[in-house]
Amino acid sequence: MSVNTFGRVFRFSTWGESHGPALGAVVDGCPPGLNLDEGTIQPFLDARRPGQSKFTTQRKEPDAVRILSGVFEGRTTGTPISLMIENVDQRSRDYSEVARAYRPGHADYAYDAKYGFRDYRGGGRSSARETAARVAAGAVARLVIPEVSITAYVSEIGGDAIDPANFDLQEIARNPFWCPDADAAARWAERVDEARLSGSSLGAVVACMADGVPAGWGAPVYAKLDADLAAAMMGINAVKGIEIGDGFEAARLSGEENADPMRPAADGSTPQFTANHAGGIAGGISTGQPITLRVAFKPTSSILTPVDTIDSDGAATQIRTKGRHDPCVGIRGVPVVAAMMALVLADHKLLHRAQCG
Amino acid sequence: MSVNTFGRVFRFSTWGESHGPALGAVVDGCPPGLNLDEGTIQPFLDARRPGQSKFTTQRKEPDAVRILSGVFEGRTTGTPISLMIENVDQRSRDYSEVARAYRPGHADYAYDAKYGFRDYRGGGRSSARETAARVAAGAVARLVIPEVSITAYVSEIGGDAIDPANFDLQEIARNPFWCPDADAAARWAERVDEARLSGSSLGAVVACMADGVPAGWGAPVYAKLDADLAAAMMGINAVKGIEIGDGFEAARLSGEENADPMRPAADGSTPQFTANHAGGIAGGISTGQPITLRVAFKPTSSILTPVDTIDSDGAATQIRTKGRHDPCVGIRGVPVVAAMMALVLADHKLLHRAQCG
Amino acid sequence: MSVNTFGRVFRFSTWGESHGPALGAVVDGCPPGLNLDEGTIQPFLDARRPGQSKFTTQRKEPDAVRILSGVFEGRTTGTPISLMIENVDQRSRDYSEVARAYRPGHADYAYDAKYGFRDYRGGGRSSARETAARVAAGAVARLVIPEVSITAYVSEIGGDAIDPANFDLQEIARNPFWCPDADAAARWAERVDEARLSGSSLGAVVACMADGVPAGWGAPVYAKLDADLAAAMMGINAVKGIEIGDGFEAARLSGEENADPMRPAADGSTPQFTANHAGGIAGGISTGQPITLRVAFKPTSSILTPVDTIDSDGAATQIRTKGRHDPCVGIRGVPVVAAMMALVLADHKLLHRAQCG
Amino acid sequence: MSVNTFGRVFRFSTWGESHGPALGAVVDGCPPGLNLDEGTIQPFLDARRPGQSKFTTQRKEPDAVRILSGVFEGRTTGTPISLMIENVDQRSRDYSEVARAYRPGHADYAYDAKYGFRDYRGGGRSSARETAARVAAGAVARLVIPEVSITAYVSEIGGDAIDPANFDLQEIARNPFWCPDADAAARWAERVDEARLSGSSLGAVVACMADGVPAGWGAPVYAKLDADLAAAMMGINAVKGIEIGDGFEAARLSGEENADPMRPAADGSTPQFTANHAGGIAGGISTGQPITLRVAFKPTSSILTPVDTIDSDGAATQIRTKGRHDPCVGIRGVPVVAAMMALVLADHKLLHRAQCG
Repeated sequence: MSVNTFGRVFRFSTWGESHGPALGAVVDGCPPGLNLDEGTIQPFLDARRPGQSKFTTQRKEPDAVRILSGVFEGRTTGTPISLMIENVDQRSRDYSEVARAYRPGHADYAYDAKYGFRDYRGGGRSSARETAARVAAGAVARLVIPEVSITAYVSEIGGDAIDPANFDLQEIARNPFWCPDADAAARWAERVDEARLSGSSLGAVVACMADGVPAGWGAPVYAKLDADLAAAMMGINAVKGIEIGDGFEAARLSGEENADPMRPAADGSTPQFTANHAGGIAGGISTGQPITLRVAFKPTSSILTPVDTIDSDGAATQIRTKGRHDPCVGIRGVPVVAAMMALVLADHKLLHRAQCG
Repeated sequence: MSVNTFGRVFRFSTWGESHGPALGAVVDGCPPGLNLDEGTIQPFLDARRPGQSKFTTQRKEPDAVRILSGVFEGRTTGTPISLMIENVDQRSRDYSEVARAYRPGHADYAYDAKYGFRDYRGGGRSSARETAARVAAGAVARLVIPEVSITAYVSEIGGDAIDPANFDLQEIARNPFWCPDADAAARWAERVDEARLSGSSLGAVVACMADGVPAGWGAPVYAKLDADLAAAMMGINAVKGIEIGDGFEAARLSGEENADPMRPAADGSTPQFTANHAGGIAGGISTGQPITLRVAFKPTSSILTPVDTIDSDGAATQIRTKGRHDPCVGIRGVPVVAAMMALVLADHKLLHRAQCG
Repeated sequence: MSVNTFGRVFRFSTWGESHGPALGAVVDGCPPGLNLDEGTIQPFLDARRPGQSKFTTQRKEPDAVRILSGVFEGRTTGTPISLMIENVDQRSRDYSEVARAYRPGHADYAYDAKYGFRDYRGGGRSSARETAARVAAGAVARLVIPEVSITAYVSEIGGDAIDPANFDLQEIARNPFWCPDADAAARWAERVDEARLSGSSLGAVVACMADGVPAGWGAPVYAKLDADLAAAMMGINAVKGIEIGDGFEAARLSGEENADPMRPAADGSTPQFTANHAGGIAGGISTGQPITLRVAFKPTSSILTPVDTIDSDGAATQIRTKGRHDPCVGIRGVPVVAAMMALVLADHKLLHRAQCG
Repeated sequence: MSVNTFGRVFRFSTWGESHGPALGAVVDGCPPGLNLDEGTIQPFLDARRPGQSKFTTQRKEPDAVRILSGVFEGRTTGTPISLMIENVDQRSRDYSEVARAYRPGHADYAYDAKYGFRDYRGGGRSSARETAARVAAGAVARLVIPEVSITAYVSEIGGDAIDPANFDLQEIARNPFWCPDADAAARWAERVDEARLSGSSLGAVVACMADGVPAGWGAPVYAKLDADLAAAMMGINAVKGIEIGDGFEAARLSGEENADPMRPAADGSTPQFTANHAGGIAGGISTGQPITLRVAFKPTSSILTPVDTIDSDGAATQIRTKGRHDPCVGIRGVPVVAAMMALVLADHKLLHRAQCG
């Protein structure tokens, strides 16, 4: 069984391979009457698009989205929205090496073990190109949650973290790393360039925050908001860890340190919290505080250093992965993490409305 | 919408509140012909049972499971297996304080925000007693995956980690902390007792490993084995983080350091890996290496120190949480993490069989 | 894979065998704050209960329901509602014959073919006793749709149909056949008694109508309201056909005859239809007219006449089904059909609210 | 909530409107390694294609399918198969009348009531053009069940049924009505032509049979094979009734008449049945006999006779539906019914394999 659909009420299914003619998403369950055209989606795809700086893969893809259904006279109709992105730059090259030997860290061996064979061109279905479809679907999801503002950024590359004292929201879009700390961005430019030139790669941590989520979204006990976010993030290519709020740091705190005290709102409206160790979720349900999470991306598995591996006959060999690759795949993960946040929240807004009106 | 069902083919639904008459699980999709009676399940419930040492809550629950359906003449029939555990020790006490004021860190406020009111007795549905139902279901799941061996243990309490050099598999069951390092267990005994006596609490990290999973379980791209494990673990009470393999540490490695080289099997059978940074999963599919993960438990939110909060009318107040509580809820999380591992793996074994025969 | 859960947002799972200790349903996704106790459910179970006249099976079951979770202080909490009904009258008898030979028309052979063995006592999971759980869940569903009024009745037994000219809503509850035509009820009393005494059985047609469903429930294209109703009804034991509106008769009409013309409401409110061939559903979505459907029940397969069959070793034999049986199982299908109607409508009300607010 | 996905393990999602740029299906969960290219699918689309005789709509659509993903080197890879069919003949016309007034029998009013507005061009999402996507998906499903042979035909038009004595399997493909009785086909030619010329329409009954389904597919109790077939068929445009086996006729039989006796296989293999009133399904599980069902199609709602209706402001008006329409939509339902049969059976084959190996 293969499961290429995500979500419960607001759902999307993606399809497509790295080197096939196109890839796409079908968004189902979207409320009717929302203003939507290609121009609503394209900026999000542009943010994820490869080849925008020397710090990302040089594959040139316009990633132009087409809406094939579900929109009439500029508004969603409530029927499925089919989004298609054509693959343009499937550079003609020789795949005989990757067809034959398993690249460690990639899904090559696992796919062969599961399916008996695989589309080896550019990683096939396991390529990070699939995330373009998520980003497109995420742009639709954002229309469902206009009350929510989502911010994602890189907080750490290769173990070098931002300084919270330098945090500047405006800085995020100013550098090619989605980095809110200009100093860190300068350091990372050197680190990532060095990795790029040497054919190496670096891991990264992406942080994401959603403001404006009201208290009450989420659901006991197997559709907890944090559980669904964990699945959403862990399913992104190269992700190996996910934390909500203080995450693993919370495991090192005492109960007193970890408490999020409450006090009445100054104006009698929504209550206030004087801390947010919980990351805005308690018992799987939003508390009205910002939802905060952090996602760990491993270093890109494609490196120029030869690594021991086996070929499809099981014989020993070595492989070095040539071709166009991101020296730090976490950078381009930023718009994907933000998209998955939007997709989970849109779904849970509708789920909540279904049960509680 | 409330979602109390987990899984895709091998599924279970749980029900019950902390202080209701009973709680239970309905396991659906279980293969027929497996040997099952109450004695198969009880040892796993006993491992999770409260009140077994002074380091866990003193609530006395026999947690005796009854099988109400789905088994005939000692074997599963393929129809739903209804498991019920009666609540016995719902100590008569005064709930007026917790009924009125929101306990920070608990789901009290979030439930009220969502549902308009809540069963405040012992946390109602958000109580960790729900995990007894998971453990019972997990015992059934283990029958589906006899080829897999699951080991879970506490690797860290209050920031004090085990020393890998001291790792002793046999030690895990010998101390009340599920700790594989006898020295660490001795230190923890002091730390946890101190927290218990002062009405404080500590966080913990639980590690889990599954040996024997063949290559090929899992599925692209929204039922990745790691994504399903992340949802399974993040949905456990008090969990705030989940890592697969090296997790966040992988974000600090270079591509060369993070590679898991392969070599042919000595005997020509399953290929071997000379490292396992990936935790046994690539592209969402098992590689045949051990599945490894780590789960962060926050400190128990119930503490004796008064914390600022509000009451259900929104007025400022303070609350200290009396009653019987785990000073370190992560300890009793060990059998729950192991159960969720079994449940995810059983489901994915059947999912794989469905598609790939 | 076994699927014992029905519904999308308002869902229920059932469990239990004919001769196990109990059976039950877990209702999930129910809105919070609805008044519910055992007394709300019991009358519907009483209506389905066996042994109430000589025209139904003489098994004596009180079918007393217990609510084990999901209700606090008399109101639904939004968490799963566990309903349990103990089996009382599992008459001690000799099952060796039915254990060994397959009863034609029953699921005996199919269960063995699927699962390799079966709980043969009283049909096990395939027994119509499972429908008690549906009726209990249906009573909860009715609370979700107070605007809807559901009427079900037998319209035909053994090919002898009611006369629409005699239709009297009040008559339905006055006779043991749920028959709205007193003359037909008198005729059926003779027919069914004759079948009972001779150990034979009769089929029946059950009609059901739901008034008060607003226009707009249902959804394109694989959760059409009529498609979900068809699945709901066809899944009831002994059902072999389902019609919406004019059903098969519509296939014999011309487009002009089958049209349901519309006209403005006299008072400017909801538009009116001057016919309802469509049974209140167009394009899978309710039109605001009454939802009407008809369900065909085959004659009870348990008969005293010996029928050729095989035993579990494949050898030829004959079997006559002794024991307590309904001479016309369609009669007791009436509350079940009504329950499934309520369950589908409750689900679609919430589904509609999820997407369209 | 909108649900445009069908199936449990072998699933497909469809998208597209009558007059949008394209429509399509995404097939997920398909086993790997099956031979598939456009040529495998096209013949089934050609069978459904409009404009092939004067008895169907004159819209000219090549319905050429493109495979956009999930196939590599001519074989399915196990990843989602995206199928796209471009709309070509969206005849430029004036939709102002249908945009303003509700066509009785169509989904116009219901869509507006649900979504607030609708794509009125050619019925939008409620158009029978959506069934092209089902037929394409069904062609893939057939690859999963090579052991099964599916036959569908029209058994009745406008109340004029075939004579079983004339049944000739070879005749089905020889006439434009998929009619196995040459005499009936001749009569229908006159009837349908008369309806076409007068701008009227006729209903039809489609029968479908699946040979080769082994005993054991299907599942208790809410994924019964017959329940899933009922949902599949009732969800086809214009369908108002579905019968399994003898269907409503079974409600008129006695238990003795309705029995399907068994006897040992002559050669000791699969047991034989000497009747098939049940239509090959008992307890929701296949028995090894042919699966038989019948589906009622209402007459096309688009007729030239003016019918009373209201406009979108609620004012009284009349409408006659001009344009290109099928005088008997049931005829083109034949390949759609066969496709849905294949889709349900493929899903249940994999479901069975998941649970029972």
